[in-house]
Amino acid sequence: MFKEMLEAVREKNPLIHCITNYVSMNDCANMLHAVGAAPIMAEEEAEVEEITAICGGLNINMGTLNQAKIPAMLKAGKKADELGHPVVLDPVGAGISKLRNDTAGSLLREVRFAAIRGNLSEIKALATGVGSSRGVDAEVPESDSLESTAEFAAKIAADLHTIVVLSGKTDIVTDGQQIFYVYNGNAMMNKVTGSGCQLSALITAFVTANPQQKLQAVLAAVGLMGVCGEKAFDRLSPLDGNASYRNYIIDAVYRMDAAELERTVRYQRIR
Amino acid sequence: MFKEMLEAVREKNPLIHCITNYVSMNDCANMLHAVGAAPIMAEEEAEVEEITAICGGLNINMGTLNQAKIPAMLKAGKKADELGHPVVLDPVGAGISKLRNDTAGSLLREVRFAAIRGNLSEIKALATGVGSSRGVDAEVPESDSLESTAEFAAKIAADLHTIVVLSGKTDIVTDGQQIFYVYNGNAMMNKVTGSGCQLSALITAFVTANPQQKLQAVLAAVGLMGVCGEKAFDRLSPLDGNASYRNYIIDAVYRMDAAELERTVRYQRIR
Amino acid sequence: MFKEMLEAVREKNPLIHCITNYVSMNDCANMLHAVGAAPIMAEEEAEVEEITAICGGLNINMGTLNQAKIPAMLKAGKKADELGHPVVLDPVGAGISKLRNDTAGSLLREVRFAAIRGNLSEIKALATGVGSSRGVDAEVPESDSLESTAEFAAKIAADLHTIVVLSGKTDIVTDGQQIFYVYNGNAMMNKVTGSGCQLSALITAFVTANPQQKLQAVLAAVGLMGVCGEKAFDRLSPLDGNASYRNYIIDAVYRMDAAELERTVRYQRIR
Repeated sequence: MFKEMLEAVREKNPLIHCITNYVSMNDCANMLHAVGAAPIMAEEEAEVEEITAICGGLNINMGTLNQAKIPAMLKAGKKADELGHPVVLDPVGAGISKLRNDTAGSLLREVRFAAIRGNLSEIKALATGVGSSRGVDAEVPESDSLESTAEFAAKIAADLHTIVVLSGKTDIVTDGQQIFYVYNGNAMMNKVTGSGCQLSALITAFVTANPQQKLQAVLAAVGLMGVCGEKAFDRLSPLDGNASYRNYIIDAVYRMDAAELERTVRYQRIR
Repeated sequence: MFKEMLEAVREKNPLIHCITNYVSMNDCANMLHAVGAAPIMAEEEAEVEEITAICGGLNINMGTLNQAKIPAMLKAGKKADELGHPVVLDPVGAGISKLRNDTAGSLLREVRFAAIRGNLSEIKALATGVGSSRGVDAEVPESDSLESTAEFAAKIAADLHTIVVLSGKTDIVTDGQQIFYVYNGNAMMNKVTGSGCQLSALITAFVTANPQQKLQAVLAAVGLMGVCGEKAFDRLSPLDGNASYRNYIIDAVYRMDAAELERTVRYQRIR
Repeated sequence: MFKEMLEAVREKNPLIHCITNYVSMNDCANMLHAVGAAPIMAEEEAEVEEITAICGGLNINMGTLNQAKIPAMLKAGKKADELGHPVVLDPVGAGISKLRNDTAGSLLREVRFAAIRGNLSEIKALATGVGSSRGVDAEVPESDSLESTAEFAAKIAADLHTIVVLSGKTDIVTDGQQIFYVYNGNAMMNKVTGSGCQLSALITAFVTANPQQKLQAVLAAVGLMGVCGEKAFDRLSPLDGNASYRNYIIDAVYRMDAAELERTVRYQRIR
């Protein structure tokens, strides 16, 4: 399954419109090239509708948010929606400022997302900080155990009619009904700025190239990133640190053999 | 000839003002350092005239265009012009939005460019999408054959009194009268985000350091980038992908021997 | 002493708010991860106060300055001050435009800086170009000798009640009373865009984690960057250029042994 999904990305070469942050923009663009997709980064309100129209999917990332990008995100999101393009949200920093919460709230109200990827605090913020009008009524779990976190993520996914990816030591992927755990990855990925943003870009490429199987496509993207984090870690020499590791992860995606991906993703369906 | 031109860049260490995109800004800055030039990235309308005045050349790149950068591009371009500094345009995404077409149109009307570098669709957009007032009346060729593309590029160059670099499998360099093909490069360069932007930055450094021989200077920059794309490709290990390739291309420019450049550029004058 | 200071950064994992330039933003973020700190890049006026409040220190960098960032810098700086967080200024390009001088002037008037790091021309601009209202009355030395430059830096530090790091072949660190020379580093660091910005980010992490010994903390950060510049240089293969060197410097910070740092910083107190 994962093999075919990676092959679909490589065959279809989907053009992905990214409205993303300035920190990891270059890495996200190279990551999209690595997987066989192609990036267009464009964030000016006056042009985002035209640009998203010529793309296959849209990735909205809230990092380095500024006032000028917010209407661009909304316009591009609504246009992509209207055209049936999958839209993926990375709510970077949701919960850390009113502006991010308000922006996440507006996006959730006005755009239908194929998938949302964040860490626990960001996904929690969608349930607590973003405001009641957004249609989420999941209660934040008292425990941060994997099980209660997964149930919480599933509730958010169901409320928002989307797929939630909750990145952590074990990644959780859920569409509200099914829940998967993905065990790949390496703790050192947290030392690479924007590794989560890069995964969100990959997810966008996978759902764009595999529109009929979005949940499996998201799972494949999460598995690919994790496997490549492991392969890149194995490649580190004693002098290599997080800068070389950053490059090696992208390199590993570029070189990934589709059949090897199929064999190496370690995941489990728990519901 | 190419030897002397690279040596001139290294000796003169020209300071290049870049108004460029956020995706490849870091790579363009490191590329300028690699070749022996020095970058200043500055895009605020209130300061660009002062900044371009202390530089030797100006590179305007339309990627990640936003409303704030447009007047800065025009002010800097006119000031550089007035001071006799060469200005190089990379019309990233010309043809994909009205905003980019309008911006390209304004730039072509108000600034004299020493060189313009783009791919076929961007250069075509200068003839079709940008509007009749810009003074281009070249007809877009029906065929995308190398010959008809080269004639088209030459017509654009003649109409705009500039040098056109049309990047492709074979690169075309023309001032409207002479036409050159440059055969260096590697297809994998398309998997590195901003490799075209980096070439535009290099072109700016070369024309700034070699103001009396601009056409040869542009040819040297295009040859250098292609040769370094080949050398970097030869250096790839089985684990290296497009992230390492990105670094190796810049490294190759840094290490380039001027006499080796002279020997390894494969080009042909066809008119 | 340096050993304990690096260990404090790694133990406390300080969160550093950066309002910085788009050229080196990614490198600064990875550098902060490398040393054991964590970055948040946020520059929108509407959220910077909330964001700086959850951080431990603030780094303000004037590169790629734009009108929107200036009020954000001032708000964040004043808020950080109020909360007792150390604030570090990198006055990139001070002296090259009225806008940068005015911005530096406003920042110096309204924010108390734990440290300011720049090259000679930037630090000179704080004494000459920034305007008399800022409280600096140091006279720019007629000679650029190390001794007169050090005295000048000390005068600036005393006038501004801050620590000045003046980066050069020999780095100068002074709080106005004590003056240190740091001899580590390699000339090739000048070929890496944003190496100074990365040092400013490191300085912020060190003063945040070692608030009781700020002068020693700054000295440790300067020594760390220099030592890592040397170690990365030693690692270069004949094909490696400034792009690989960029990665190797960050890698070296990531791998730095605290006891080795203690042994390898070469510095001297001259007053």
